[in-house]
Amino acid sequence: MRVKLETRLLGANELIAHNNRTTFSSQGILVINLMSSPGSGKTTILEKTILRLADKIKMVVIEGDLYTDQDAQRIEQQGVKVVQINTEGTCHLDAGMVNHAYQELLSEKPDLLFIENVGNLVCPAEFDLGEDLRVVVISVPEGNDKITKYPLVFQRADAVLVNKIDLLPFTDFDVTKVQKDIGLINPKTKIFLVSARNGDGLEEWIAWLLEQIQAKKTTNRNLE
Amino acid sequence: MRVKLETRLLGANELIAHNNRTTFSSQGILVINLMSSPGSGKTTILEKTILRLADKIKMVVIEGDLYTDQDAQRIEQQGVKVVQINTEGTCHLDAGMVNHAYQELLSEKPDLLFIENVGNLVCPAEFDLGEDLRVVVISVPEGNDKITKYPLVFQRADAVLVNKIDLLPFTDFDVTKVQKDIGLINPKTKIFLVSARNGDGLEEWIAWLLEQIQAKKTTNRNLE
Repeated sequence: MRVKLETRLLGANELIAHNNRTTFSSQGILVINLMSSPGSGKTTILEKTILRLADKIKMVVIEGDLYTDQDAQRIEQQGVKVVQINTEGTCHLDAGMVNHAYQELLSEKPDLLFIENVGNLVCPAEFDLGEDLRVVVISVPEGNDKITKYPLVFQRADAVLVNKIDLLPFTDFDVTKVQKDIGLINPKTKIFLVSARNGDGLEEWIAWLLEQIQAKKTTNRNLE
Repeated sequence: MRVKLETRLLGANELIAHNNRTTFSSQGILVINLMSSPGSGKTTILEKTILRLADKIKMVVIEGDLYTDQDAQRIEQQGVKVVQINTEGTCHLDAGMVNHAYQELLSEKPDLLFIENVGNLVCPAEFDLGEDLRVVVISVPEGNDKITKYPLVFQRADAVLVNKIDLLPFTDFDVTKVQKDIGLINPKTKIFLVSARNGDGLEEWIAWLLEQIQAKKTTNRNLE
């Protein structure tokens, strides 16, 4: 019974996600779906990313949270336009929510839309939002076993940020094991070792983002 | 549509949870539903708890995971009987899964059943498993804002373990703020500051557990 409904829901979601993707592409916007457990550092990564991209591109953010707008407030303080989606307890964003929220950002004509999903390594992985790229954050103190325990979100990731590497000396985290585990289930994904707190490794991440934005614009121009 | 189904599913779950609770109570077993984000340290807390309770009480464990049995293997190495539930992608345990798994543990006649839920701060909070107590783990590197962002799981918690306090010097975690936030939405919950890694604070947690087991046995004896 549950499976049937999930299939129906996912079917409807796919349709709206497809429409979102067409809309975003026609406007040459790169869209990133950012996912992680609660507390891996998604919002801090966004804050630091905004700081480093502010003079280069136009960026907007959709924030997903159960009830609060704490993260949206943090993003707004960085000077970018942000729309908050409160899922009222639902454990993931869906394409319809994103479609609705994006109407408020249309006039911004952004180069990059970041969608920060609800903090959860399970449910968000199943729902296509119409994004171009899926980026997953894991953090050093979460431990080595997250890749094998929550495989779906990593299988579908275009990039994985291993955050809080400043805590490596104080944990048993094994970077090589995690890189190997990701490589086994998703050899094409890019892996970035970063500390959003002190800025380590963020240059490579920013350079990759700028490449992706450029690639999207080139594809879009060729299609016109 | 979704809401209706969730209500139906929750209704069926409540019924099985009630049956579980009656069964557990008739046998004088204390049952604890252990919940947290991925990587907060549930399994390490269980390992250390087993070590400290091994000569005092009989304990069994039900392990919830999406696909793997890594945590069950870790628990088994501590010498207690454990049953693994693989939810095959479902983001929480439900009462039916627990009912089914418990059949394999019946003959153990335990004093304490620990149910380690799927790593997720959202979905597990909604599903009663028939437990006596709900214990939620948060860890220091997850940050200060988890209580207000994921309120349901904390509103329904009988105890909260703040784990990884050995990382306090290397993060911005504010213990006083978190204690205050928990107190605001759930003033009766017990809060334990622990490091499963180095053992700090575990004595208070173990003492509380033994009190709860004793209280359950006393209630049960008075009912007979």
